[in-house]
Amino acid sequence: MLAAVIHGTRDVRAEERPDPRILTPGDAVVRVVAACVCGSDLWPYRGVTPTRQPRPIGHELVGVVEELGSEVTSAKVGDFVILPFTMSCGVCQACRAGCPAACDLVTGFGSTDRDGHPVDGAQGERVRIPLAQHSLFPVGRPEDELEAAGLVPHLLTLADVMSTGYHAAYSARVSDGDTVVVVGDGAVGLSGVLAARLLGAKRIIAMSRHADRAARAREFGATDVVAERGADGVAAVRDLLGGDLADAALECVGTKESMDTALDIVRGGGRVGFVGVPNGGPELSVRRLFNSNVTVGGGMASARRYMETLLPDVLSGAIQPGKVFDLELPLAEVAEAYAAMDERRATKVLLRP
Amino acid sequence: MLAAVIHGTRDVRAEERPDPRILTPGDAVVRVVAACVCGSDLWPYRGVTPTRQPRPIGHELVGVVEELGSEVTSAKVGDFVILPFTMSCGVCQACRAGCPAACDLVTGFGSTDRDGHPVDGAQGERVRIPLAQHSLFPVGRPEDELEAAGLVPHLLTLADVMSTGYHAAYSARVSDGDTVVVVGDGAVGLSGVLAARLLGAKRIIAMSRHADRAARAREFGATDVVAERGADGVAAVRDLLGGDLADAALECVGTKESMDTALDIVRGGGRVGFVGVPNGGPELSVRRLFNSNVTVGGGMASARRYMETLLPDVLSGAIQPGKVFDLELPLAEVAEAYAAMDERRATKVLLRP
Repeated sequence: MLAAVIHGTRDVRAEERPDPRILTPGDAVVRVVAACVCGSDLWPYRGVTPTRQPRPIGHELVGVVEELGSEVTSAKVGDFVILPFTMSCGVCQACRAGCPAACDLVTGFGSTDRDGHPVDGAQGERVRIPLAQHSLFPVGRPEDELEAAGLVPHLLTLADVMSTGYHAAYSARVSDGDTVVVVGDGAVGLSGVLAARLLGAKRIIAMSRHADRAARAREFGATDVVAERGADGVAAVRDLLGGDLADAALECVGTKESMDTALDIVRGGGRVGFVGVPNGGPELSVRRLFNSNVTVGGGMASARRYMETLLPDVLSGAIQPGKVFDLELPLAEVAEAYAAMDERRATKVLLRP
Repeated sequence: MLAAVIHGTRDVRAEERPDPRILTPGDAVVRVVAACVCGSDLWPYRGVTPTRQPRPIGHELVGVVEELGSEVTSAKVGDFVILPFTMSCGVCQACRAGCPAACDLVTGFGSTDRDGHPVDGAQGERVRIPLAQHSLFPVGRPEDELEAAGLVPHLLTLADVMSTGYHAAYSARVSDGDTVVVVGDGAVGLSGVLAARLLGAKRIIAMSRHADRAARAREFGATDVVAERGADGVAAVRDLLGGDLADAALECVGTKESMDTALDIVRGGGRVGFVGVPNGGPELSVRRLFNSNVTVGGGMASARRYMETLLPDVLSGAIQPGKVFDLELPLAEVAEAYAAMDERRATKVLLRP
């Protein structure tokens, strides 16, 4: 089968790989209908995190179940399913408490599972899914109907980007009437705008300096856009709010600067939800949190959980999170998909095997 | 008047000081009925924070209004009032949002107010209260009735210690059915146990290695006591919970070790409420929070707010948080009050002017 493999900095190739097969009774094999490239995939692509040896890449997919291990009863062969970007067991304490992202057996795509077997990347034609009983999320409608309705890109966002934006807003405890600032105008930030609207925010300020992304943010529910960054961005938000600050901020970047902005842009007693993958930092000063009474929460999204929350709104068309995709390419052109995102010619690229 | 003044390490004296008087139309003068010594007062006492020049000390009091500035209408002369441990304006965004601890004009006892006037310490016979309009909290019953009912010590805890324990539990979003670990068995930790019970925790594990404090914790609602600390404490909690961890932890100490224990003792997606004053640290790893999905919130308690929540339970006798006091001394013996707490002969000392 064809699958994306990263070989090193700015070197992602579509290559022939062995077809996956069932290795344990808890596995499934899924044929990929659509996958995509994540902002976090750009880290190894850009060499920020090193690639020591070639490995399959990608962690977002929707597809159709082709084969099931003998213990998997949560889906049937032929079901259209969404996969969360990490697999989880469904029975450990974190899973039972609604936080499968912190599952005791959490398993990522392109890694090695707890039985020592390699796990495929999601940017491929087929994927073996370990921990399939809890990880497969059947949508309940057939592939051809979902394709005909144009729902596939929207469903694909529940695998990661929309669920991650939702996690930012959920972790910041956004609720009715809140004023929310979203730091970051990538696909996750845009999804955070949509999530803040879903959770009842009255005023949503998107921090963006790209006209196309700002326009998408407004379409998703942003009431205001601020182009300034850092201290100037905080001052601009104060101006907008008549001297006040936000009730909550969504940190959707993952740098020290973006976290600082999020902390500075909320009022005393405010909340920061963060989902930007912190790359070697930052550290948070407990004294700073103590003095401001700002709560910080977030991390890896429990996509498996939020799918259940968000699926009805996607199927009904109430939300169209798939609008974060502004380029679609065949899997064979995965190298161009990465280049387009790296060079900011695309916000997020959908791949079709 | 007599008031406590700290001169340096282990040197607190009861001294004659000028009687306070109204300096601005927003001031009040309160006669102190009862004050007390806080764990955080021990930091300058022990020299952990330096005392560069003698200054009045103490920030917890209940008393009777003796005099009011012309702009203060929230209380009457003769009212029995509780003071929060920081004064606040009541009109800034943080105050309006229910977080007066982060007030734009936040003013502490023994400091200088925003008009540049010195503010008395609470361990004295009388205190000038700036920002009195919002800071005075009238209890609604006369002094003699409250004294006769033995309610004064319980009311005094709302000035800080009980409100701070409540802030830990509130910040950790303790709710019905939760399993909660309380790190720290000082007066704040004990108050945290009581607060966790009030907020519906089903299982409350107090970490304590002092028999008297452990007994008080059980009286306040702890279902279990763990004497071990650090990694051993985490293991002991796992044993108690059949391999699970807590839903929430209350960090009531303020050291790196206690924060680490709190972070390690909650499950993925759990919550840490912290109220221990961080003394020059610690720093929190965002990566650690990201991986565990643990939310961290807390800081200075908005005592002015929690008084409103907790007063009915104190007046009805439903809670008796004043049991954290295990020694009462006249103000003249303030040096012995500090020594008793420093040497752990007392958990918390009540002072009577």
